[in-house]
Amino acid sequence: MKHLSKIAENLLGQPMFGLLSRAQDMEREGKKVIHFELGDPNFDSPDHVLEAAKKALDQKLTHYTNSMGLRELREAVANYAERDLGFKPDLNQVLICPANALIDFTARCAADPGEEIILPGPGFPTYYSVIKYNGFVPVPVRLKEENSFRMNPDDIVEKITDKTRLIIMNTPQNPTGSVMTEEEVFKTAEIAEHSDVYLLSDEVYSKIIYGGKNHFSPSLRDKCKERTIVLGSLSKIYSMSGWRLGFAIGPESFIRKMGLLLETIMSCLPAFTQLGGKAALEGDHSFLGKRIQELNERRNLLIGGLNRIKGLSCVMPEGAFYAFCNIKGTGMDSARYCEELLENSGIAAVSGNCFGSFGEGYARFCYASTEKKEIEEALSKMEDFHKKI
Amino acid sequence: MKHLSKIAENLLGQPMFGLLSRAQDMEREGKKVIHFELGDPNFDSPDHVLEAAKKALDQKLTHYTNSMGLRELREAVANYAERDLGFKPDLNQVLICPANALIDFTARCAADPGEEIILPGPGFPTYYSVIKYNGFVPVPVRLKEENSFRMNPDDIVEKITDKTRLIIMNTPQNPTGSVMTEEEVFKTAEIAEHSDVYLLSDEVYSKIIYGGKNHFSPSLRDKCKERTIVLGSLSKIYSMSGWRLGFAIGPESFIRKMGLLLETIMSCLPAFTQLGGKAALEGDHSFLGKRIQELNERRNLLIGGLNRIKGLSCVMPEGAFYAFCNIKGTGMDSARYCEELLENSGIAAVSGNCFGSFGEGYARFCYASTEKKEIEEALSKMEDFHKKI
Repeated sequence: MKHLSKIAENLLGQPMFGLLSRAQDMEREGKKVIHFELGDPNFDSPDHVLEAAKKALDQKLTHYTNSMGLRELREAVANYAERDLGFKPDLNQVLICPANALIDFTARCAADPGEEIILPGPGFPTYYSVIKYNGFVPVPVRLKEENSFRMNPDDIVEKITDKTRLIIMNTPQNPTGSVMTEEEVFKTAEIAEHSDVYLLSDEVYSKIIYGGKNHFSPSLRDKCKERTIVLGSLSKIYSMSGWRLGFAIGPESFIRKMGLLLETIMSCLPAFTQLGGKAALEGDHSFLGKRIQELNERRNLLIGGLNRIKGLSCVMPEGAFYAFCNIKGTGMDSARYCEELLENSGIAAVSGNCFGSFGEGYARFCYASTEKKEIEEALSKMEDFHKKI
Repeated sequence: MKHLSKIAENLLGQPMFGLLSRAQDMEREGKKVIHFELGDPNFDSPDHVLEAAKKALDQKLTHYTNSMGLRELREAVANYAERDLGFKPDLNQVLICPANALIDFTARCAADPGEEIILPGPGFPTYYSVIKYNGFVPVPVRLKEENSFRMNPDDIVEKITDKTRLIIMNTPQNPTGSVMTEEEVFKTAEIAEHSDVYLLSDEVYSKIIYGGKNHFSPSLRDKCKERTIVLGSLSKIYSMSGWRLGFAIGPESFIRKMGLLLETIMSCLPAFTQLGGKAALEGDHSFLGKRIQELNERRNLLIGGLNRIKGLSCVMPEGAFYAFCNIKGTGMDSARYCEELLENSGIAAVSGNCFGSFGEGYARFCYASTEKKEIEEALSKMEDFHKKI
């Protein structure tokens, strides 16, 4: 193979997509697979969202748009912030962009190669792959099982050096489902302020919290004017994963730079997907309650069942739709456990080490797209599997 | 403002979008603007494309997809290559991605900062902005007006050093509308082979050629197995600019790396836009003939008119939908000329220096979205403007 750049050599991609592809191969061979791997809700995008996109197509809104995003959608995001985060940002503080790309753009605008980014360990794989391929230095803060996997602000302080450029926090959290307390969230905001570093608050699961708990955002402290960048997404909350729509709210100067990066790489996003997004943010939200109730039932069923299986133990997650299950009792490492579980029982879960080295000893089970009947079937197959090992 | 990365400091964006934004401000103030700035055809996306996307929305195809692109669309691209380029690539040689992003991804997979990329000067601004923000070294090959702006392979040879990693060629060309001859195209492919560097062949205007001339692709030489990366797009040919759909055909190992970069940054593209793209590639192409006839009439009208205006001269472009007009006779530099033309006459054209320093002394007029009546009106306003200067 010809010469490739360092970036090309350091690309990891997203491990869940690789696993999905393997699982789909098994299905093509006629094997049944129960999917716990991809964080993609099996609910439909709301009808009013589909209709808005179809209407835009009928109106032939198929030309280039403003690279910062449609004004109407940015206004909808600003109104969302006023309603849910407690402050109304200026439109110049809002950028429309796939959420995954915003992680890449935020990191690349905040840090140069060799500089440090603090992030949760275990944490969303894109944090790790973005840091690795760009040559940044990952500084994971260990999320402790005994603290229900909530990120402890005191552990962040210890990691800050003069090379720190960005802290990434994530609540509700992927892969553990932990939800930070109000005190933890605002203490993290204070730490970012005192250390004078950017703070990326990944809030893509903000409305998926169980037991009536609240979501807290560190953005209230600086109203995204100084250092906080809120990362939002329509993928999980509105079951719009395939629309590739997210948004950032941040300091105007920083958002402008991220907008230029979007303009350079993607030019802009489709108008008809963005108008679907506007319909989601502004439309009826009553469907959400029912969906979260369904997710809650799946959660209780799955975590209860996992904890009854010999060799497994699982903290009850408070948000998102992931169970991060301790598999150390099996004596296997995470990768081998997940591989054998898939090959032997047709159950696809993600190895904990895909979420950074602090994920070793765990496996992530996503219950966003598995019906309760399938969860029961999976638990029964897992019991059989665990008897054999 | 807080510390920003070097990348953030070096971002340029795409100048056409900035100009569009300024022109739209003028329109909000009630001034009439005739738009020659953005390369966005004012034709509608074909009906069968719109219908395919709407059908996919009705089928709720709104979830994550394979990050390399839908298999059906990659097959459609492979069939396009067999039909139009003369060879059928393997599906693993095909990646679905916005074309603009493919320029960024190709450059970032082929070169490290400090390494050299050969490109046409003047050339598409994204080449220049990608090279600049990533810290690559741009090595422009001057397109000479006396050669009708066709890139001369002999001029490429002179620019190759041991730091060259990539040659970018583009036919039909933006911003000059030049179309390389068969001999020039294959000589360029030979040069890339002998120098052992990657060759990015930007063919996004491949079907927009006037006078019955043919499009030639250097890909026939290595069938995209060794070094050639064909860049295709649905934006211009199918009037689908806002769909953000393009494709690359290249060496399997290189395409895999670009796919990982897409997966890391964007995860994947929407299924319903991709199914629109499939309908475009596989559907009826009879609409194209009429559109190219209309573009041809606009071209003859515009270039004829420009050449009658004192101080201007314009080579007849053979493809794409741009006129690259020599404005040196006005005594103004390109930026000032375009600014005054917009402010005085409400005519938005892009300053030649937005396409690299070899574009100085020229202005680009895009006739993709201006009706003949508007072109006549613009020419008459320009005559008045030129009498005053």
